[in-house]
Amino acid sequence: MIARSKRPGFLDDGLELVHRTGFAGAGIAAIAAAARAPKGSFYNHFRSKEEFGVAILDRYFDAVQATLADLLERAEGTPGERLHAYFAFLRDLGRGQGYARGCLVGNLSAEAAPVSVALREALAVRLAEWTGALARTLAAGQGAGEIRRDVPAEVLARLLLDAWQGALLRAKVERAPDSLDAFLEVLLPSLLEGRSA
Amino acid sequence: MIARSKRPGFLDDGLELVHRTGFAGAGIAAIAAAARAPKGSFYNHFRSKEEFGVAILDRYFDAVQATLADLLERAEGTPGERLHAYFAFLRDLGRGQGYARGCLVGNLSAEAAPVSVALREALAVRLAEWTGALARTLAAGQGAGEIRRDVPAEVLARLLLDAWQGALLRAKVERAPDSLDAFLEVLLPSLLEGRSA
Repeated sequence: MIARSKRPGFLDDGLELVHRTGFAGAGIAAIAAAARAPKGSFYNHFRSKEEFGVAILDRYFDAVQATLADLLERAEGTPGERLHAYFAFLRDLGRGQGYARGCLVGNLSAEAAPVSVALREALAVRLAEWTGALARTLAAGQGAGEIRRDVPAEVLARLLLDAWQGALLRAKVERAPDSLDAFLEVLLPSLLEGRSA
Repeated sequence: MIARSKRPGFLDDGLELVHRTGFAGAGIAAIAAAARAPKGSFYNHFRSKEEFGVAILDRYFDAVQATLADLLERAEGTPGERLHAYFAFLRDLGRGQGYARGCLVGNLSAEAAPVSVALREALAVRLAEWTGALARTLAAGQGAGEIRRDVPAEVLARLLLDAWQGALLRAKVERAPDSLDAFLEVLLPSLLEGRSA
């Protein structure tokens, strides 16, 4: 079916557009134009813009998970070293677009979570998965005595991901990596070492 | 002039609408309807939606500055106690709307900064002012020996504000204060005490 074969274009090109202009800012006509498809064909693939939003979040999260697997689970180094390398990689990803886009998960959290129940619930699931992946590495570091043990790994993971999303917001405003650098150089070690260091 | 007298309504009611639905999601017609004004009258007060965005940011920041003055500058307690009370106050502000709205500054950073130069520049100014107010209290705590001195107060202030904005994003998704509580209970003391504690 021709209709079905266009769906990957809607997802890839639509994700790109939403990442650049925001979810509400990207209208159906603009999404279809980005995918070089007739406007009416959008509804052959998605029942609503909300469903499209969940689909591009899923697509984006595939890349998040691939990076988590590569840099946290399969990489060399201690858990603390892998966490540092992971966030340094994410920081460097933003350089090519002048830190303007941030993270689609954070952007949708700010913009779409208050107005769409379906997107909000999908975001909650993805944030929990992301936090869980960070927590597994943190727990390994706690087991090895590299990371503080007075705070549960799940709480440290939540704080790291939240602080990272906040640093990305500021980087978008400043079009500069200062907040991402401060996260890597000060917040990450302060949070992982705690009082025992 | 009648036209001018409606501007406060556009600002207050429009700010409320944008805070609830997002900047791109709030169209001119909806903003005018919220202010109980004819749609066409919007352009008697603002040359563009962008100019309106900067105006509501200024209005919102008046409240931010009043709270900073009350809780950081004029309040009782040590600098560290005042910082804790300040963020605890902000957390409790969100309870009434189920943590759905977050902070207008963070929301606009996510949504509007990548697409509007004027809004992005206004956000940068406001974030710098907010960071400066936090840094003055942090510097007082450093002087008193209550807060670590190995990191400049400006950097600590940046990290606190960024991490707070990130925690607000997660609270919007979860509709729960867990991330705000973790910020207060773990991140704030970890960042302020550092290795010397």
